[in-house]
Amino acid sequence: MRYAIGLDFGTESGRALLVDLAAGAEIATAIHEYANGVIDRRLPAPHDDVVLEPDWALQDPDDYIAALRATVPGLLRETGVDPADVIGIGVDFTSCTMLPTTADGTPLSRIPELRGEPHALVKLWKHHAAQPEADRINAAAMARDEPWLPRYGGRTSSEWFFAKALQVLDEAPGVYRAADRLIEGADWLVWQLTGLETRNSCTAGYKALWSKADGFPDAAFFGSLDPEFAAVVDDKMSRDVRSIGERASELTAEAAAWTGLRPGTPVAMGNVDAHVSVPATGVTEPGTMVAVMGTSTCHMALSSHLALAEGMAGVVEDGIIPGFFGYEAGQAAVGDIFAWFVRQAAPTEVHERARRTNRTAHEVLQEEAARLRPGESGLLALDWWNGNRSILVDAELSGVLVGATLATGPADIYRALLEATAFGARTIIESLEASGVPVERIVACGGLAERNALLLQLSADITGREFTVAASTQTAALGAAMYGAVAAGSDAGGYDSISDAAATMVRPAVRTYRPDPSAEAVYDALHAEYMALHDHFGRGGNDVMRRLRALRAGAS
Amino acid sequence: MRYAIGLDFGTESGRALLVDLAAGAEIATAIHEYANGVIDRRLPAPHDDVVLEPDWALQDPDDYIAALRATVPGLLRETGVDPADVIGIGVDFTSCTMLPTTADGTPLSRIPELRGEPHALVKLWKHHAAQPEADRINAAAMARDEPWLPRYGGRTSSEWFFAKALQVLDEAPGVYRAADRLIEGADWLVWQLTGLETRNSCTAGYKALWSKADGFPDAAFFGSLDPEFAAVVDDKMSRDVRSIGERASELTAEAAAWTGLRPGTPVAMGNVDAHVSVPATGVTEPGTMVAVMGTSTCHMALSSHLALAEGMAGVVEDGIIPGFFGYEAGQAAVGDIFAWFVRQAAPTEVHERARRTNRTAHEVLQEEAARLRPGESGLLALDWWNGNRSILVDAELSGVLVGATLATGPADIYRALLEATAFGARTIIESLEASGVPVERIVACGGLAERNALLLQLSADITGREFTVAASTQTAALGAAMYGAVAAGSDAGGYDSISDAAATMVRPAVRTYRPDPSAEAVYDALHAEYMALHDHFGRGGNDVMRRLRALRAGAS
Repeated sequence: MRYAIGLDFGTESGRALLVDLAAGAEIATAIHEYANGVIDRRLPAPHDDVVLEPDWALQDPDDYIAALRATVPGLLRETGVDPADVIGIGVDFTSCTMLPTTADGTPLSRIPELRGEPHALVKLWKHHAAQPEADRINAAAMARDEPWLPRYGGRTSSEWFFAKALQVLDEAPGVYRAADRLIEGADWLVWQLTGLETRNSCTAGYKALWSKADGFPDAAFFGSLDPEFAAVVDDKMSRDVRSIGERASELTAEAAAWTGLRPGTPVAMGNVDAHVSVPATGVTEPGTMVAVMGTSTCHMALSSHLALAEGMAGVVEDGIIPGFFGYEAGQAAVGDIFAWFVRQAAPTEVHERARRTNRTAHEVLQEEAARLRPGESGLLALDWWNGNRSILVDAELSGVLVGATLATGPADIYRALLEATAFGARTIIESLEASGVPVERIVACGGLAERNALLLQLSADITGREFTVAASTQTAALGAAMYGAVAAGSDAGGYDSISDAAATMVRPAVRTYRPDPSAEAVYDALHAEYMALHDHFGRGGNDVMRRLRALRAGAS
Repeated sequence: MRYAIGLDFGTESGRALLVDLAAGAEIATAIHEYANGVIDRRLPAPHDDVVLEPDWALQDPDDYIAALRATVPGLLRETGVDPADVIGIGVDFTSCTMLPTTADGTPLSRIPELRGEPHALVKLWKHHAAQPEADRINAAAMARDEPWLPRYGGRTSSEWFFAKALQVLDEAPGVYRAADRLIEGADWLVWQLTGLETRNSCTAGYKALWSKADGFPDAAFFGSLDPEFAAVVDDKMSRDVRSIGERASELTAEAAAWTGLRPGTPVAMGNVDAHVSVPATGVTEPGTMVAVMGTSTCHMALSSHLALAEGMAGVVEDGIIPGFFGYEAGQAAVGDIFAWFVRQAAPTEVHERARRTNRTAHEVLQEEAARLRPGESGLLALDWWNGNRSILVDAELSGVLVGATLATGPADIYRALLEATAFGARTIIESLEASGVPVERIVACGGLAERNALLLQLSADITGREFTVAASTQTAALGAAMYGAVAAGSDAGGYDSISDAAATMVRPAVRTYRPDPSAEAVYDALHAEYMALHDHFGRGGNDVMRRLRALRAGAS
């Protein structure tokens, strides 16, 4: 028996998954919650007098090491697997989650005199306080007509690497100067495991404006933001960006001691949780889109060609599967909208029915909403409860519901919200296909894909495409383990490519939702209505959402 | 001491109110629920095998007589008032609530061979099954460019007199032919009290297309709908329409026996519940609008001149206060929207807080919504949950909510819905003022005016006008009693005009809500946004609501 371990560093916890290389069986999982979780109100003691602004979200890098030390030895103990049979390790991480370190990789947050300094900690992906910096980056890129901007749908996000880095320079120049390195969490973790600093093509491409063909933006661009920022890449990063399919290096003696694994165990390049899920659903070639469906949704598709589709989050060569251009798009809120509805707008009667029948409110609403025929709710919604990330890329947009009557019930609204997210997904698919990126079918994974059957059926009906649900419920960790097996290579009992790994290690999809032909005409009509509202409110027909947001900000 | 009695015939019950003429004190009230209530599913036994279509709403005229016989004797008994001191009686009714009778006023529903015939019963105001007939009336009136059509905002309602009459002819020509008279409930009730058939200017004007200057539409118009309908006015109605300020006649011996009052007691002309409320709030001259605020809202204003304001329900000389043109407009759902929200969209937490603090959910929501500043909800709604009755007059329109985010809470939505109905009211006010009908302030009455203080304050803020709340909680019955006092005249201890009656009998307003100057700028901006959505969805910018309704109808 041969095994690989996938290490998945999430928002609240770290996870280790032990996978049987031959059958892809997920043998065991261990999860460790971060002691400091998401740091978004005040710093951990003894610096808890430092209060954070609302948009901040930090983490403590020592929590990652603690998770590593807790989970892997636990797995080995629990299963009795011989460390010699663990032939490879892969790592995935939330992203862009980045931190400042010294030249040897020591996080600045470990340096005593910087412990009370928020900018010395990890900036988590959902740290949104760098919006002014993102605005400056976007304005400068547009003004300079930067060639890389179209690859990101014409706009970069406050969540990305250089906005976060520039915020450090803006607000804590001392920290910026003290940082020999600025690095993604994924790459930092690989550094801790292997002793070698690497930079992976996925985070570099999707979060740090890098491309295989052109590298990073040039120093003149960075210098236009701040003279001191001109050399950010050469001073604090690396131009040696390596493909996610490669072996980063091998486990050090120190990391072997932390984990109980053998020194010298191959370690894959760092990767991102969403992107590493793609091969874990069995997708390694163009034609099938992967939808990671949760509180928000991430859509990923592959193509042999570079195309510039409207409103994509990014297009990166070697960004998802080595050898292909990977396209990423996303919906800023999906499961979050349904959760909002159940919490803020579902009447008591729904909750009581759930309690009486020992189900969740979602299950009750799904059952009732499933009885409605297409169009029967009389409602149409725009799924912009958290702005629009694709294809309009406008965080100031907001949700709309049209068609309410005195006869409208909770199941009507619930169904309209599910449909709205499916119309949003169709918009992304049609934008990709218009640019020549094929999307013939979709594989879904993530909590929502597992739990919300009605959403999947409506998504199939509305997009006119088959939706299958991936077998694994922990695709990120599985994908990381698969890359670990590729890092080991076939000579060591692993695989030589991620496609080979997928062919053996991915179990067949558990469920398939096929488009209902009888729903097609109504949903085509409703999608046309959705697009009319989408364009009216999203493309300048009526900028009322922007003005409502300004009034809200002015009032509070 | 001198008294008058107001008889108020509502949707579910009849009410009698005894009023002290000198002070306007409401001495006692008696209410009697109709035994057969609203007949909207099947006929009463023994004809309960007759099932009605969904849009039907009938009543049994014998329920009105039963209410009369139960309430008035009860009042006299309870108070010990000497019938000789009751100097006048007034009657108000829902409208258009109409019935077919024989030449002596016997309802056809009392004739044994017609008892199982739905068309022989009273068609209640909210009987909506005559929509096809209303459509024909509107089409014919538009095609013939009928001169009366502009007085009704260009469209007549399925609730009105001729639509209901034509439905009888269409569906039960035998009943139509058996009907010597077709008559409003108000006039029929006065007939039962006095033995004299009269026709009042209020229902004739607002519901039967009559005007003091031009009378009814001509026979050619009615004949274009159906040759047999050409003579409907001369055969089954009367051209002798009398002002609501007049004495109809006096109580007969039979009606005196029913009520315990003295034969010969003066009885006023019949009137309508909403319209008779106007003098009961103290309004008898132009300048002040009356808003009867309940599940829906009726707005009434006066002018010395005839003007054609957009989307009015009707403009009638002597229709509200004798001597003035009365303007009526309305919002199809107001309290109904808030009730819908509490029932269908307020989360458990609101209901639990209400239970814990021994309040209603509305009170809890009002308290929390009152803490928000204008614009702070970030939301804007169109209050079309039951279509739009003013000023667009389009029942196919539906509700809209714009601006929802993951942070939107129930109090945000509740406040946005209150604001939306106030924006709707402002639309009506601005339409009236644009036509030269002055609306300087508003007196509100009805359940919503009494219970929803936040709605009144927001209405003042949004319209920029003072809202006062009338002292009486039963303005319809009070107004009817006031007209009863006018029927008696000053020689008998009553009054010679409704203005005189109002000057003495109406107590001062109980509360005044003044516009908050600090809210003006935001609400002007939000009203402009409301109008942009209003025109986009309501005036052909995007007819999505009509198409959603068609899809809904097609699906179910």
